[in-house]
Amino acid sequence: MIIDCHGHYTTEPQQLHDFRKKQTEAAHKHEHLAPWDLKITDDQIRDSLEGAQLKFQRERGTDLTIFSPRAAGMGHHIGDARTSMEWTRLCNDLIHRVCTLYPRNFIGVCQLPQSPGVSPANCVEELDRCVTQYGFVDCNLNPDPSGGYWQTKSLADRFWYPVYEKMVELDVPAMIHVSMSCNACVHTTGAHYINGDTTAFMQLILSDLFKDFPTLKFIIPHGGGAVPYHWGRYRGLALNNGKPELTEHLLKNVYFDTCVYHTPGMELLTKVVPIENILFASEMVGAVRGIDPKTGHEFDDTKRYIDNLSSLSAQDKQKIFEQNALRVYSRLGARLKAVGLRA
Amino acid sequence: MIIDCHGHYTTEPQQLHDFRKKQTEAAHKHEHLAPWDLKITDDQIRDSLEGAQLKFQRERGTDLTIFSPRAAGMGHHIGDARTSMEWTRLCNDLIHRVCTLYPRNFIGVCQLPQSPGVSPANCVEELDRCVTQYGFVDCNLNPDPSGGYWQTKSLADRFWYPVYEKMVELDVPAMIHVSMSCNACVHTTGAHYINGDTTAFMQLILSDLFKDFPTLKFIIPHGGGAVPYHWGRYRGLALNNGKPELTEHLLKNVYFDTCVYHTPGMELLTKVVPIENILFASEMVGAVRGIDPKTGHEFDDTKRYIDNLSSLSAQDKQKIFEQNALRVYSRLGARLKAVGLRA
Repeated sequence: MIIDCHGHYTTEPQQLHDFRKKQTEAAHKHEHLAPWDLKITDDQIRDSLEGAQLKFQRERGTDLTIFSPRAAGMGHHIGDARTSMEWTRLCNDLIHRVCTLYPRNFIGVCQLPQSPGVSPANCVEELDRCVTQYGFVDCNLNPDPSGGYWQTKSLADRFWYPVYEKMVELDVPAMIHVSMSCNACVHTTGAHYINGDTTAFMQLILSDLFKDFPTLKFIIPHGGGAVPYHWGRYRGLALNNGKPELTEHLLKNVYFDTCVYHTPGMELLTKVVPIENILFASEMVGAVRGIDPKTGHEFDDTKRYIDNLSSLSAQDKQKIFEQNALRVYSRLGARLKAVGLRA
Repeated sequence: MIIDCHGHYTTEPQQLHDFRKKQTEAAHKHEHLAPWDLKITDDQIRDSLEGAQLKFQRERGTDLTIFSPRAAGMGHHIGDARTSMEWTRLCNDLIHRVCTLYPRNFIGVCQLPQSPGVSPANCVEELDRCVTQYGFVDCNLNPDPSGGYWQTKSLADRFWYPVYEKMVELDVPAMIHVSMSCNACVHTTGAHYINGDTTAFMQLILSDLFKDFPTLKFIIPHGGGAVPYHWGRYRGLALNNGKPELTEHLLKNVYFDTCVYHTPGMELLTKVVPIENILFASEMVGAVRGIDPKTGHEFDDTKRYIDNLSSLSAQDKQKIFEQNALRVYSRLGARLKAVGLRA
């Protein structure tokens, strides 16, 4: 089984965008919009997926996508905590409907109702709801709800502990994923996403977070930002700061996905990071769309890069495609049984 | 000849730090300090270099460092434009003294008196002074004088044109190098530096800057941040935004240094980026100090990684170590003659 651990619902029906536009306008006036005004039919959801994520799954031979709301769309900086909560519940409900319509294609991941300056204790209830009622196996945690200004605390700060405690209790990991950049100098998918990954990993290097939470698990998306390419730099910075080797310090708790869109990058990732810490992912339909004129294949068809890597054994590939995901997403195995994908 | 194009004066005499501390305190009270109060002797400068940069040059077999003030120390966000100007002139004067004491070891690079919200037109005079009076061959341009908040315009904005016009007139490139991060969430050398490189490159992707300035040259340090690792992503984002291939779009004007502290990273860089666009650099004495316990050599001894790359021909290595630098730093050849390093 090939499990893509990083897919977003980036082909949402237009009604969702229309609602969000109105909600944002209301938020600017410190008002709130009635979420029940949004109506999306099952057919509209099917239409939004059939020609995109489902088509790519079939064409590329991937089985299952661990699926969350559009990351750039989380927009935690918009409005206040109530705006964020109402939007988050809507988005998560929509993911649940996707997973209900296509239980063998999508497993849910929730966004969280974060809001700048608000304790993530306010995320605990929504996380619990999505995991226990909807069967979601993961959440996306935004290390920078201010949208590029990094106005919150380091991920190692006790500020975040309420949500970590709930994650540990539920035994779900978090993908550390920023949302849109509000800063015109910092491009969302070309700079803020990658920078967010790098910044978060560096926060973890300087911390002893996993002494407090030995079973907490984070996935750093986009191949770990700049981290694997600068592995020597990060090993050195860890040692310079009195920490042990990264393998010892972080890699019992931190995983990288494979959203790296060319073969040399994938080679580097799989050479530098232990195979046990790599999870297959494509981020489709995501940041980079269209066909690479040099290969004739989609940039984000990351399965091809891995398939073609002669440096990896069949066993390595199976770990990346399936086994690691089943280990990191502790609830995934049971979920696969529940939807009939495993005996 | 082996030319290290990225070295900072990070071992400055204590007096400089003492002065800067007092200057910063004065700036907080909207006051200015008399720069002539700072006294540093030639022997103090010699002492600061003999056991560090000069020792490493000898040990590693590098000949010459293209040398600038400490990048984190530029601190353009501290005080106002006058603070920045006085500090910048001091720092550049100190680099000039280094280059005068060791003309065969160091060639100067200036910092610029940038200040948040102030037009970089105020940098033109200092750039001219350093190039025409001191023989400097390059400048460090900070794309984010706000120190992590990206409050200035994209590098492609006309805001920056006055300094580009002067660079073109003088025929000097700029290394695009941020300074210290003022944000505790964003580590200076582990996140802000690398993010700055990535953000700047993405700004250039979205622009047509080099249509306006076909001879303008930028060096992106730290191996180009995350860019080479995510080369497929950046090629795709360029194409998605209606731009041509990166080689066509940017690589006639943009170069990457080799400050990547492990072999797989160096392999990737030299595989992905054309050899003509790679400049040897170590950033010593810089971000990562000490010996890699896995190799027994300093992390930032980047010459070793390149020496050991069997994928590169002797000619490739000569380009990286010397020829590319002589091409990119147009004034370097004449400077080497002036100090007797070339016939």
